[in-house]
Amino acid sequence: MAPKSNPKALVLIAEGVEEMETVIIIDVLRRANIEVVVAGVDVRSLPIVCSRGVLLSPDVRFESIKSFDKFDVVIVPGGTGSAKIFSENAAVKALLRSTYDSGKILGSLCAGPLALKAAGIPRNTKLTSHPSIKGQLDSVYDYQEDRVVVCKNLITSRGPGTTFEFALTLVEKLVSKEVAVGIATPMFVKHKL
Amino acid sequence: MAPKSNPKALVLIAEGVEEMETVIIIDVLRRANIEVVVAGVDVRSLPIVCSRGVLLSPDVRFESIKSFDKFDVVIVPGGTGSAKIFSENAAVKALLRSTYDSGKILGSLCAGPLALKAAGIPRNTKLTSHPSIKGQLDSVYDYQEDRVVVCKNLITSRGPGTTFEFALTLVEKLVSKEVAVGIATPMFVKHKL
Repeated sequence: MAPKSNPKALVLIAEGVEEMETVIIIDVLRRANIEVVVAGVDVRSLPIVCSRGVLLSPDVRFESIKSFDKFDVVIVPGGTGSAKIFSENAAVKALLRSTYDSGKILGSLCAGPLALKAAGIPRNTKLTSHPSIKGQLDSVYDYQEDRVVVCKNLITSRGPGTTFEFALTLVEKLVSKEVAVGIATPMFVKHKL
Repeated sequence: MAPKSNPKALVLIAEGVEEMETVIIIDVLRRANIEVVVAGVDVRSLPIVCSRGVLLSPDVRFESIKSFDKFDVVIVPGGTGSAKIFSENAAVKALLRSTYDSGKILGSLCAGPLALKAAGIPRNTKLTSHPSIKGQLDSVYDYQEDRVVVCKNLITSRGPGTTFEFALTLVEKLVSKEVAVGIATPMFVKHKL
């Protein structure tokens, strides 16, 4: 996919989402001037309580978004609680599947890839996840152990400590390698490109 | 300081705080079973808008805390907006100074050390910060360029990409090296101890 001049990202969150992964993704993409919308799925009350009790509010409710056409990438952070919510939500699963099928970038890490499986991302696709859920994925997918795995338009990663690399890989794909390196340096992230 | 069995941490936040640094600190300390209270300083409305627009809510308002005696560590994350708020708040400055003077751990990173300077942390102490504010600190302090700097009970660091190392150093001091290594591995953080 050729980089767009003004890319837009949708980040899905729900109760139990992993807060470090979520916030690193949002912050790094915004440092690259990517427009990020944080959408809360099945939100019962605000703020959302994340996996380690951090209190986070979405920008919008997922259910209030009328069209997803404007988004160039959809991202599912980790957290077992939120992965379960996404996996049981028909509209989220339809979005993940249509994003993948359209060739737009779909990104996920840690426990998030459980939602990709629930959404029916095709068998034998190369992906990774947190090792704690490897057993739920490796009979269906071509499971990898790399910190970030790029397979066509699917980008997956492993956990909080790989999230900077994951987010910078998204920046490379959506903007440019130069911008990824440019924002990594002042963050003190050692980004090898 | 000998590790305590049930350490308690106070993390200060305010408008403009750097959200990655804040959330990594809270999450990593909680993974180490450290009790963390997130206190919002001078909060006008909730949620707090962080430096890159992430919407975060504190656990309590700073002004509602009657005694700080129970806390074993006080932490000031980065963000130029929040550092300015902390630097202009007499109660925050008194807390930072009394924490340091009592020998309890005081931690800060990125732009946060500007609040340490405002609080009157003694001259010639070894510390670091984000390089963008080095010029405001290096005539007063023994400025270092390491990713994490430990000088007696003051622990400082540089930016979002050094926050895992910073938080794990706090875990080492407050709990143990073994616990720090134990939580680093499943997070995919390469922690050298």
